[in-house]
Amino acid sequence: MSEITIDVNRLGRELDDLARLSATEPPSITRILYTPPDLAGRKFVRQLCVNAGLSVREDAVGNLFARWAGSSPELSAVGTGSHIDAIPHSGMYDGTVGVLGGLEAIRALQRSGFQPKRSIELLLFTSEEPTRFGIGCTGSRALAGTLSPSDLSELKDAEGNRLDNIRREAGFTGPLESVRLQADHYSAFVELHIEQGPILERENLSIGIVTAIAAPAAFRVKLDGSGGHAGAVLMPERRDALCAAAEIVLAVEAAAKATGCPDTVATVGICQVHPGAINSIPSAVNLTIDVRDVILISRDQAVRAILEAIRTTATKRNVTATIETISSDPPATMAPAIIAATEDSCRERGISHRKLVSRAYHDSLFMARLGHTGMIFIPCRNGWSHRPDEFASPEAIGAGVEVLARTLARLSQN
Amino acid sequence: MSEITIDVNRLGRELDDLARLSATEPPSITRILYTPPDLAGRKFVRQLCVNAGLSVREDAVGNLFARWAGSSPELSAVGTGSHIDAIPHSGMYDGTVGVLGGLEAIRALQRSGFQPKRSIELLLFTSEEPTRFGIGCTGSRALAGTLSPSDLSELKDAEGNRLDNIRREAGFTGPLESVRLQADHYSAFVELHIEQGPILERENLSIGIVTAIAAPAAFRVKLDGSGGHAGAVLMPERRDALCAAAEIVLAVEAAAKATGCPDTVATVGICQVHPGAINSIPSAVNLTIDVRDVILISRDQAVRAILEAIRTTATKRNVTATIETISSDPPATMAPAIIAATEDSCRERGISHRKLVSRAYHDSLFMARLGHTGMIFIPCRNGWSHRPDEFASPEAIGAGVEVLARTLARLSQN
Repeated sequence: MSEITIDVNRLGRELDDLARLSATEPPSITRILYTPPDLAGRKFVRQLCVNAGLSVREDAVGNLFARWAGSSPELSAVGTGSHIDAIPHSGMYDGTVGVLGGLEAIRALQRSGFQPKRSIELLLFTSEEPTRFGIGCTGSRALAGTLSPSDLSELKDAEGNRLDNIRREAGFTGPLESVRLQADHYSAFVELHIEQGPILERENLSIGIVTAIAAPAAFRVKLDGSGGHAGAVLMPERRDALCAAAEIVLAVEAAAKATGCPDTVATVGICQVHPGAINSIPSAVNLTIDVRDVILISRDQAVRAILEAIRTTATKRNVTATIETISSDPPATMAPAIIAATEDSCRERGISHRKLVSRAYHDSLFMARLGHTGMIFIPCRNGWSHRPDEFASPEAIGAGVEVLARTLARLSQN
Repeated sequence: MSEITIDVNRLGRELDDLARLSATEPPSITRILYTPPDLAGRKFVRQLCVNAGLSVREDAVGNLFARWAGSSPELSAVGTGSHIDAIPHSGMYDGTVGVLGGLEAIRALQRSGFQPKRSIELLLFTSEEPTRFGIGCTGSRALAGTLSPSDLSELKDAEGNRLDNIRREAGFTGPLESVRLQADHYSAFVELHIEQGPILERENLSIGIVTAIAAPAAFRVKLDGSGGHAGAVLMPERRDALCAAAEIVLAVEAAAKATGCPDTVATVGICQVHPGAINSIPSAVNLTIDVRDVILISRDQAVRAILEAIRTTATKRNVTATIETISSDPPATMAPAIIAATEDSCRERGISHRKLVSRAYHDSLFMARLGHTGMIFIPCRNGWSHRPDEFASPEAIGAGVEVLARTLARLSQN
């Protein structure tokens, strides 16, 4: 392959420019699906794609496709991409490195004079984060057909707005039935992403080649107890929903630690207390529980222990617990051919690498249902993510984009 | 004393009318200090006072005084009153029964042909609830001088607005130095209030005569841990602020139960989680802790146990705990002369009654620092308060207003 040069400075400026399109002041990034910062971010990416000579289309939920036509455009394309949405007060690299880095990989191949046989297509997925509609990977689930047009249309945000109305207001008006991709749309899909874990940094490696993506299970739990004045209701008469929630939070932590599998993680990320006044006994609490493992059996062991703890606490405290499953997806295995192409790309440039599993889920979890899928990780500082001090160095990003570009080139010639 | 007739129907209509001035749909009442519903409620009460021929004045924080001049207006007045502010999603009787019921007591005395020697003054206190500025009894603390004009002026709400600015925008523009009352302003102050506890209903009694008001201690606790992606940070590496908060919530409950005194109550009413996303490890949590007892020594025993538990949890979990004392007030004893006058009023009408202590605090806690103070409780359904189904029957309210009227009459002749 001819020489490939990554313009890390330009990519860094583009990441900075995108970071400024946020509902909170950078480095604290907040970019919620279909809100003005999300729409501004999409517009920014779209313009960069047009500038690179790519053909852009957007589907009915806002997934964006930017295609560099290959010499055999009738063949299935090679895909790459990620997301730009960001949970409240998170960082500027999660997802964006795979979108803008994917674009820079294409531009670097263009500059090198490379001509792909298969078309290469950049994707910007709608809403990988579950912030607004409670479910992650909305766009990629819809592409893979694991979220039906009718279920998609009826998703509701915290204000009760239906996704179908919100996406139309955002300018995405086509039929939702048209979103799902053909199984042969891509011959391969590769996503570049920050690791969101500490392994690569700890081992001083530049690239992680993902072999599997952990299986997340997520629940919403509503606890209904009994409120009252904090001064007046004696302790034995209380049905305090927050005390019940506290027991469940600790049970979630204990269940993850008890599987015997170090990869099991479980988190209560949301805990909303009603009415939420200093002198009122909490009458109701909403919790979310997120349980993950690369081993399905360990994850489900933790889930069973958590559900049992919720029942026990609810009975003991005379509190009603309503449990809703948000998602419970199977893990995904990455395609050996893509793993091999990525390894070859690392080796030909002497870039250090290892195989690892992804404990965070990604759009690739659902793209793997459509066809051959792979992921390339780069190290991020301290493994931190979903926080304002999330950071990936220009060198790390540059190495990741170079390996991605070489991998795309390889896959596009097959 | 001549015949006194309470117009319970009219009073009920006025309570209903006031309930409609709420930021939430009745029976869920939300009336936060200086917001439009609070200002509309004040205007409503002021007009009723004017209609009753009372002379109205408002001080620089919005405490409202409506005076029925006695035949010896140079003597210290007899005061009665309560508050109309309401925490989010609470009920329509807490406070309002003492304001509109106090007014009806005055009107009933007027209708009976009674002429007081001492003036009788109705008070509407500014912000008994701590909702907006984190501290309860703002108005009565200022009247008693336990909150200095400069401390008062610097109170900040959740948006960082200073009380001094907000009260001016609400139309209360006088010097804060003018708020404090002279110690001899009232010869006696009596507050009518719902019990907010189950004793009177359980014992089928019409009137509770308060002998002491419990001493509240309140704290804000900020827990700072470490955030990150819920899928990626392994359990042993976590510094989850919500897990620390959960231990503290349970320790607060345990500390109240451990004093050996059945009156000790402790509550975590607010628990705000940052960043608050399903797939983010909580990096920070804000809690409030409210501890009360009529026995100072038991309360302080619980407070010490809670502070110790916070330190232990913070150390064990490598989380930073910042503790701020919101208030730590001594209990108040009610004046024997007012207790006697209330008992006499019950007896002359054959109204069932008992003495009890108030575990909730009230503006009377601070009025007791200014001079002789008493409280009259009426039963409320199931002892419920601070919730939409808070309820006091017309009969209960009528009996309370009649006893109040007779007590005011007695005290105004002394």
